[in-house]
Amino acid sequence: MGNDAYREMWERLNLDISAHDGLLEVLGKFYNDIYLTQQGRLSGMEYLDFVISEVHGLRIKELVEARNSGKKVVGTFCVFVPEELTLAADAIHVGLCAGAEIESREIENIVPRNTCALIKSFVGFTLRRLCPYTQSCDMIVGETTCDGKKKAYENLEDSLPMYVMEVPQKKDGADRSLWRSEIIRYKSALEKLTGNTITAERLKKSIKTVNDKRRALNRLNRLRAAIPTPISGRDVLLANQISFYDDPERFTKSINVLCDEIEKRIDRAEGIAPAGTARLMLSGCPMAVPNWKIPYVIEGSGAVVVGEESCIGTRNTRDLVDESGKTIEEMIDALCDRYLKIDCACFTPNTERTENILSMARNLDVDGVIHYALMFCQPYATEAIKIENMLKKEKIPMLRIETDYSMDDIEQIKTRVGAFVEMLSL
Amino acid sequence: MGNDAYREMWERLNLDISAHDGLLEVLGKFYNDIYLTQQGRLSGMEYLDFVISEVHGLRIKELVEARNSGKKVVGTFCVFVPEELTLAADAIHVGLCAGAEIESREIENIVPRNTCALIKSFVGFTLRRLCPYTQSCDMIVGETTCDGKKKAYENLEDSLPMYVMEVPQKKDGADRSLWRSEIIRYKSALEKLTGNTITAERLKKSIKTVNDKRRALNRLNRLRAAIPTPISGRDVLLANQISFYDDPERFTKSINVLCDEIEKRIDRAEGIAPAGTARLMLSGCPMAVPNWKIPYVIEGSGAVVVGEESCIGTRNTRDLVDESGKTIEEMIDALCDRYLKIDCACFTPNTERTENILSMARNLDVDGVIHYALMFCQPYATEAIKIENMLKKEKIPMLRIETDYSMDDIEQIKTRVGAFVEMLSL
Repeated sequence: MGNDAYREMWERLNLDISAHDGLLEVLGKFYNDIYLTQQGRLSGMEYLDFVISEVHGLRIKELVEARNSGKKVVGTFCVFVPEELTLAADAIHVGLCAGAEIESREIENIVPRNTCALIKSFVGFTLRRLCPYTQSCDMIVGETTCDGKKKAYENLEDSLPMYVMEVPQKKDGADRSLWRSEIIRYKSALEKLTGNTITAERLKKSIKTVNDKRRALNRLNRLRAAIPTPISGRDVLLANQISFYDDPERFTKSINVLCDEIEKRIDRAEGIAPAGTARLMLSGCPMAVPNWKIPYVIEGSGAVVVGEESCIGTRNTRDLVDESGKTIEEMIDALCDRYLKIDCACFTPNTERTENILSMARNLDVDGVIHYALMFCQPYATEAIKIENMLKKEKIPMLRIETDYSMDDIEQIKTRVGAFVEMLSL
Repeated sequence: MGNDAYREMWERLNLDISAHDGLLEVLGKFYNDIYLTQQGRLSGMEYLDFVISEVHGLRIKELVEARNSGKKVVGTFCVFVPEELTLAADAIHVGLCAGAEIESREIENIVPRNTCALIKSFVGFTLRRLCPYTQSCDMIVGETTCDGKKKAYENLEDSLPMYVMEVPQKKDGADRSLWRSEIIRYKSALEKLTGNTITAERLKKSIKTVNDKRRALNRLNRLRAAIPTPISGRDVLLANQISFYDDPERFTKSINVLCDEIEKRIDRAEGIAPAGTARLMLSGCPMAVPNWKIPYVIEGSGAVVVGEESCIGTRNTRDLVDESGKTIEEMIDALCDRYLKIDCACFTPNTERTENILSMARNLDVDGVIHYALMFCQPYATEAIKIENMLKKEKIPMLRIETDYSMDDIEQIKTRVGAFVEMLSL
């Protein structure tokens, strides 16, 4: 990362150049330590290494060029924002920077101190002008999935082109009506933003495009479950993370190439860790680029991560949109149904998530689950309690971790994860 | 508080008798120090002193007797639960204990450590069997107003007869439909619980009953604004707190008697503090009995509290239900409209609250505002930021306090409030 060729572009995007240089330098070193030093990596990962190395460079250049040609860029934080509609309006749908600790006293002018690291990070990236994605957006779509985000958006309205979708809190009839009306409202907002009409033909195509991306990631998730494990958890997490930034068709193709390679490795019964290595599943809050803290600790403790039950993981890919719809109305119904299947902790009582975790733990044949909650994330931290109780009954060990993006607690987490892995290996 | 005559009743309610004795002793002493030592109190306050002294005694005895005669008791935490419907089903509508710090390690088996004091208190009261209201409930109605409560209810389902209402997060057409369907669902749940049908006649009567209670409290709020201040802020807060526990008709009568007395005091130009005393308004999170910490500190610093912009305050009383409805449908619409006027921080963007605070500050002619947020209450803590910005523009000083129920920070708060009051008096 970091390239003089992009300096002029970053200046035009009004980034804080010297702070951004510093950020890229730290991230580049971090990526090298966590990713590039891995043994037995698949050559298909080279594409993802390249994308990450150009995530503030070439990809942003693509956005700039697209905008110059009249396209619009829509930024999101959440898997509830229907990418299918964004693409059908011929706009670009990207995630925003929220995975690194950004120090700034001004963050507390927007959100209280007791706010989760993800939200604080996004606010920090925004206030310090460090995220070229945020700076490239024509519209930023927030949602009401948690108190922290819902209220933070209000205080960002002056500095960003915010648009907020309301996600209901239950899944009954009136909730579906509300969510359907929010999908239609988003469609209108996109049409107004882009000047393009979302036709049935365009929407049908984009539903297929996004489903294909999900299919590729689901294929990756099936293949990774082989014994011995053919790919590290870190690498699969990276694929999930990059799915939020890259061009969807190009991304899908590259993941399928990676999967082809994994299939061959499985045929040869090769893996990145010997059979018998403790298999862990991560469950809980999303891990945005470059938040690789916990997977790095786990895989450094002699275990492998074989599943991410998270928004940057199976929560985003498991369910497909029904592709049989012919009219706009039918396709909107299909979108509505698919998105309401998401088992986010914003719903109550959200029993689906408990069921999904159990079936995932069984299908992946895990030895244990590590539940990851960002500090001050009340929805996931509270669900961790009932999930731990459920897994206890099923005799699946669970370790509960609550942390932020700082490295202050890294030794403590290493000790706890190490002890957990040791206990599983007994 | 505390009376041997009630021991048998408390035992039958399965309270932890010795811990409950200890609690009543502490609260009695606390009440004496904060309330009974005040100078120049109105004789109309004797009724409220009596109610508080019998809040775990005589009032519970009434609930027990009502239940013995076949009535049902419904407990709530939130001003969104329509008391009108509860009363129209001939059930009793009461608040639950949530205002005192209850120490118990088991609380973290239900909610995470980083949960606000109000929720932790309720969980503590429940787990330690210390709240005779909770123990008397046939149904407990929660709501989805914040992540903390929404998720806590899920983990309490095994120990309490929970019923959860969904409050929407915006106030558009689809939100109104959702809320209306939730009101109808609550009506059905009450009819099922009680075996009584909610007729138009009964609902019309209960709408009037609850409006009368609000009218009496609004009258009290108008009168308290006189200069010199005729009644302490603590006493008005107490009236608002007791409105959640007492029989509504008896309560309304007693508040109107108190108001008659205040009118006479105003005619004589008498007050509890001299003209020129700094007038402060409290704004933010609710203060449940016996959470008198901040008003006590403020009024001990030589200022008076002349308004509570809070759920246990004007947020609960300001808006009346339209009384012109004749059919059940019309009355449900009137309930729906009235409850959606509540300017809770659970809504986004909730600009009404900012407007209401400004008009209240002007009408009460306050010298400053103290914004009170419970620690980890993201909705109110985040709104505090925009309210402070708004008041700054209007040149109304604001002090932001974030705290819990412990007394650990009392000296720090005294210092900050003292400095704020001194600054206002310059």
